Amino acid sequence: MKRTEISTLGEFGLIKVLTEKTKHFHPQTIRGVGDDASVWDMGEKYLVCSTDLLVEGIHFDLTYMPLKHLGYKTIAVNISDIAAMNARPTQVLVSLAVSNRFSVEALQEIYEGIHTACQNYKVDLVGGDTTASRSGLFISVVALGEAEKEKITYRSTARKGDIICVTGDLGAAYMGLQILEREKQVFLANPQMQPQLEGRDYVVRRQLRPEARTDIIYELADLGVTPTAMIDISDGLASEVLHLCKQSGLGAMIYEDKLPIAQETYDTAINDFNISPITAALNGGEDYELLFSIRQEDYEKIKLHPEISTIGYFTEPEKDIHLVLRSGSLVKIQAQGWQHFQEKK
Amino acid sequence: MKRTEISTLGEFGLIKVLTEKTKHFHPQTIRGVGDDASVWDMGEKYLVCSTDLLVEGIHFDLTYMPLKHLGYKTIAVNISDIAAMNARPTQVLVSLAVSNRFSVEALQEIYEGIHTACQNYKVDLVGGDTTASRSGLFISVVALGEAEKEKITYRSTARKGDIICVTGDLGAAYMGLQILEREKQVFLANPQMQPQLEGRDYVVRRQLRPEARTDIIYELADLGVTPTAMIDISDGLASEVLHLCKQSGLGAMIYEDKLPIAQETYDTAINDFNISPITAALNGGEDYELLFSIRQEDYEKIKLHPEISTIGYFTEPEKDIHLVLRSGSLVKIQAQGWQHFQEKK
Repeated sequence: MKRTEISTLGEFGLIKVLTEKTKHFHPQTIRGVGDDASVWDMGEKYLVCSTDLLVEGIHFDLTYMPLKHLGYKTIAVNISDIAAMNARPTQVLVSLAVSNRFSVEALQEIYEGIHTACQNYKVDLVGGDTTASRSGLFISVVALGEAEKEKITYRSTARKGDIICVTGDLGAAYMGLQILEREKQVFLANPQMQPQLEGRDYVVRRQLRPEARTDIIYELADLGVTPTAMIDISDGLASEVLHLCKQSGLGAMIYEDKLPIAQETYDTAINDFNISPITAALNGGEDYELLFSIRQEDYEKIKLHPEISTIGYFTEPEKDIHLVLRSGSLVKIQAQGWQHFQEKK
Repeated sequence: MKRTEISTLGEFGLIKVLTEKTKHFHPQTIRGVGDDASVWDMGEKYLVCSTDLLVEGIHFDLTYMPLKHLGYKTIAVNISDIAAMNARPTQVLVSLAVSNRFSVEALQEIYEGIHTACQNYKVDLVGGDTTASRSGLFISVVALGEAEKEKITYRSTARKGDIICVTGDLGAAYMGLQILEREKQVFLANPQMQPQLEGRDYVVRRQLRPEARTDIIYELADLGVTPTAMIDISDGLASEVLHLCKQSGLGAMIYEDKLPIAQETYDTAINDFNISPITAALNGGEDYELLFSIRQEDYEKIKLHPEISTIGYFTEPEKDIHLVLRSGSLVKIQAQGWQHFQEKK
C-alpha cells in the first residue's frame, strides 16, 4: 500500500486532503472548515465554535511553562479564534489526557489558570473530558461564542483598497520562546545556573501567557467599525496575510516601517540572537494579535487607537503580497509558519 | 509539595475537584459540567455541546481496531451524548494528534469512517485541528446539537415511580472486547494463527462499530414520549443507573429477568469466558445504548417497541439501588465502571 508522509503535505495540505469529501446536511451551517471557527445559524444570531489540541513536547514544554500559565494560555488561544470571527466568547469545554506522571495537584494548577482565564474573558467552563494517556499531557479546548449576523467577520471578505490593521505588537512571543529555549539549554548544561530573564520579562510573558484580543472586538463595536476580514495571528503575520489574501482573492502591500514591534522584542532579536526583528514579526508564531482589514472610510475612527496599527492595504491579486522595505524596495512575502510535522529522520 | 495520585480519586472524583471553583457568567448557560452535554439557551431552542478525547492504548487498540471503524466510532460515541439529552445532533469538529508512525493514507482511512458516520447521523463536519504527537494517536471530537426547550432531558429529573427503560441490548460490546483481546493474545503468541471470530460477529461489531441511538430519539418524539431523565450507557448499566439515581435523588429497582441480553452475548459470556452475562450487562462498557425513564402513563406508548425494554422503576432514595434476581432475592448494585487511571505500579 502506498505510504505518503504527513510532512510532505504540511498542516494545511493535510486538512484539505482529509476534509475534501465533507458534505453539509444542514442549511444552518454557514461556515465549516477553513476559517478561525465554524458558524451555525441560531436564528437571531450566529453560533461560532472552534477547537484546538495542545500537545506536550509539540506546543509546550513543561521545563519552563508553569502549569498555571499553560491553563491560561490554552483558554486564551481558543478565545482568540472566537474573537477573530468578531464574535463574543461565551463557553469553553476542556479535555485533558494525562499520564500518571501528573498528580492531582498538578492538574489543579492547570485549572487555576483555566479558571482565571474564564474569569478574565467572562466565559463559562461547561464541560470536557478527563482521561489517562500513556505518556505526556494533551489538552483539547472547545470555545463557543456568539456573533451578530451583520457583524461576523470571515477571512474571505476583504476587498481591494481595504486598510490592513494589526493589534498590539508582533514577534514578542517568538523572541520569548528563543529566550526560554536558550535558558533551558544553559540549565541542562549546568543545573546550578539560574535563568537570565531580567529585562526580558515582556517577551517571556508574551510567550507564556498570551492574551486574546477580545478587548479590541468590544472597542471596534463601540467605534462602529466592522472589519471587512479578520484572522488571529497564531503562525506569524506573513502566514496570516497569506490566508486573508488567498481566501479573499487579493494581493497586499505591507510596510516594514509600519510593523509594530516592541522595543524589548527589537533588542532581544538584535542583541541576543542577531536576527532581524522584522523576521520575528513576520514569521514568529503565537502573538495571538488580530489581523484585520477595514474600509478606507473607517480609517478616521481607528487612527488614534493606541493598540491598532495600520500596516498596509489590499491590492489586486496579480500584485501578490509584498513587503515595502524602508529603502522603498519590494520583497515578496512567503509564508513560513510553524511546521509541527517534521520530516522523518 | 503534597502529591495526590489521580488514581486515588477516580475520574468522577477528579472532575469534581478540578471544576468545583467553576463560576458561570452567562444566564444562558443552563447546564455545565455534570450531564452528557452542556446546555446553552439560544432563544428559541437549546444548544447542547459535548466533547470526548480518545487515546490510543487507553480507549482503542489499533491491533484489532480498523482505522475506518475507529473514525466511525469516535463520531458515534459523541453523537450518543447528544442523543442522551433528547437532542438532535447537528455538527461535529474533529481534532487529531498523530505521531509520524501514521501516513496520510492511514488518516484518510480514519476520515472515511468519520464521513460515513456524519452521513449516517446527518451531522456536518465543520472544523477541528490537526497536529503532531510524540507518540500515539489522540482524537478529540466535539458534537453540537439542538434540543427543543420543553423536550430536553437531563440526568437529574427522574421522579419516584417512573419506569426505567433501556434501548437495544447490553453487554455485547464488552464481550466483543474480550473476544478481540483473546484473539490478540493468541496472535501475539503465534502470528500464524488466524483470529477465531466466527459466530461472534455481533459482539465484535458492537465493540468495533457501535451506533448512537438517535433513531430512538426521533421515534420517542413521534410517539409523543418525553423521557423524564436520560443518560447514555458508556460505562455499564450499573454506573449509569447510579448516576441517574444520584442526580435525581432516588433509588431504583432493576429486574434481572428484564435485562435485554442478546443470545450471542449470553453464549460468549458463558461458553467462552465462563462469566455471568448479567455481569457483562451491568458492568461492561461501551454499549452506547440509552438508559431513560418515562412516566407510568406513557408505558402503553412504548410497550410494544422492539428496541425498548422496561427494566425497572425509580424508588425513594432510602431504598438504594437493587437488582431483583430471578429467585426474588435482592442484590445491592454498585458501580464498577471503567477505571482508566490505574494505580502506579
